[in-house]
Amino acid sequence: MNAIDRLINKIKEMDNPTVIGLDPRYDMLPNCIKEKYGTDIKSVCDATWEYNKTVIDNVCNIIPAVKPQAAFYEALGIDGMELLRKTCSYAKQKGMIVILDAKRGDIGSTSSGYSSAYLGETKIGDKSYNLYDVDFLTVNPYFGIDGIKPFIDDCKKYDKGIFILVKTSNPSSSELQDLKLENGKTIYEVVGNLVKEWGEDLIGENGYSSVAAVVGATHPKQLRDLRQLMPNSFFLIPGYGAQRRESRRYSFRI
Amino acid sequence: MNAIDRLINKIKEMDNPTVIGLDPRYDMLPNCIKEKYGTDIKSVCDATWEYNKTVIDNVCNIIPAVKPQAAFYEALGIDGMELLRKTCSYAKQKGMIVILDAKRGDIGSTSSGYSSAYLGETKIGDKSYNLYDVDFLTVNPYFGIDGIKPFIDDCKKYDKGIFILVKTSNPSSSELQDLKLENGKTIYEVVGNLVKEWGEDLIGENGYSSVAAVVGATHPKQLRDLRQLMPNSFFLIPGYGAQRRESRRYSFRI
Repeated sequence: MNAIDRLINKIKEMDNPTVIGLDPRYDMLPNCIKEKYGTDIKSVCDATWEYNKTVIDNVCNIIPAVKPQAAFYEALGIDGMELLRKTCSYAKQKGMIVILDAKRGDIGSTSSGYSSAYLGETKIGDKSYNLYDVDFLTVNPYFGIDGIKPFIDDCKKYDKGIFILVKTSNPSSSELQDLKLENGKTIYEVVGNLVKEWGEDLIGENGYSSVAAVVGATHPKQLRDLRQLMPNSFFLIPGYGAQRRESRRYSFRI
Repeated sequence: MNAIDRLINKIKEMDNPTVIGLDPRYDMLPNCIKEKYGTDIKSVCDATWEYNKTVIDNVCNIIPAVKPQAAFYEALGIDGMELLRKTCSYAKQKGMIVILDAKRGDIGSTSSGYSSAYLGETKIGDKSYNLYDVDFLTVNPYFGIDGIKPFIDDCKKYDKGIFILVKTSNPSSSELQDLKLENGKTIYEVVGNLVKEWGEDLIGENGYSSVAAVVGATHPKQLRDLRQLMPNSFFLIPGYGAQRRESRRYSFRI
C-alpha cells in the first residue's frame, strides 16, 4: 500500500494526528533509567534503547508514528547507528509508521546512496540488503529534481514516502525561504509548487501524495498559504508541541 | 591552526589543489580486491577498507585531501559507518586533510547534534567523545543562519571548517539556485553573500575563511561570478574530473 495511505489510515484508526519524536539526548533521559547505566557511549546507547523501547511500548496503541532524529543517533557514533536501526525496527514491529528525520539530499548519484540506505535496498551482486526499516525519510530540496528523483523512484518501487523541506520551523528559515522572486512568489512557494508537481504520480486513495512536505507550525500565515497551494500534499508540521524544550516533538496534519 | 590554513598550506606544500573522493561502490571496486572477499555487507566493507587504505597509501604524498562521501558508507549500514570512521582516521594518520561530504543541515538544536558527531565532541556528563576524525564537513544552507551557527561555533572551538553548498554541480541545480529574486540577484548569489558574511570571523593567515563554499565546476559562468563576489571564500569544486563515471571525483581551488 502507498506509504501515505498507510500513515493516513493509521491516523484515522487511532484518531490521532501526532507523531512522537525520539531524539536521544543523554541529559534528558529520566534519572530512573540513567542510574542503571554507565556514561561511556555504549552504555548511553543501552540506556537510550531502554528509554526508546519504553516510549514505543507506551505510545504504540495511541500514536500512529514515530520520528527518530538521525543527528542525535549519529552523535553517538557507530553504536548510535545500531541504536537507530534497532529503534526503527522495534517501532515497525509494534505497528508504528517510522519517519526517519535525516534531511538528506545531494546530486542524483549520491542521493541514490542515501535512498538505498533508508528507503530502498543496497544491492551487492545478486543480493539485496534492507538496512533500516523506515517508511518515510525527510529530504532537502536545494539540489532540485535530480537530487530528489532517486528517492521518488524508491518510493514507487518500495511503497515508501518522503517529506521534503518546504518551510522549516526555525526562526532564520526566513533568511532564504521567505525571499521574494522576480515573479512575486517566495522561495518556499516555489518549493511547494515543485513538491506538488514531483508528487503527482504518487497520490494514494486518500487523495494525498507520498511525496509530502515539511511545513513549520511556527509560521501560521505561510502554513495557510501552503495549504491552499498544495491541496494534495500531506504536511509534517514541526513546532507543534515542545520543540527544543524536551526530547519529544509533535507534529500534526491539517 | 585555522582549518583552512591547514588545507592551504598542504596544497602549497604538495603543489596540488586536488582532493580525492572515496565513494565506496561495490561494482567499481577492482576485481583483484573483490575476489578476495565475500559479498555480504561485512565482507564488502572489508574489501572497501583494503581499497581505501591502498588509495590513501598511494596518494598521501601527492594529494593534500580526501573526501569520503557519507551516503555510500551509510548505504553499507552500521559496518559502513565503522568503515567511514576508520577511513577518516587512517587518512588523518597519513597526514591528509579529511573533508566529510555529508551535506548535513537542520534547525539549530539538531545541527548541534550533527556538529558534535563530525566536527566537535559528544559530551556525556563530564566526558567528551571525539567520534569521527574530520577537518571539514559539507553543509546545506536551506535553514539559514541558525542551522549553520552550531557548525561555525565548533569550527571556532575545534579549528574545523565547513563547506556550505552555494551552487551545486548537478544539472537541476538551476531549478532553485538560479532563480532570480526581485532585487535582481540569484539565489546562489544570496547564499554566496551569506557564506561570505558568516565566515568573516574565521579568515586565516592565507586570507581565506574556514567557512568555505561548494561551487560546481560544471557551471563556469556562475563560478566566475561567485569568485568575484566572494574573494575570501575558499571553493570546493566538484565536477572537475570524472564525476559519476567512477568512484574518484576531483575538485580544485581557483
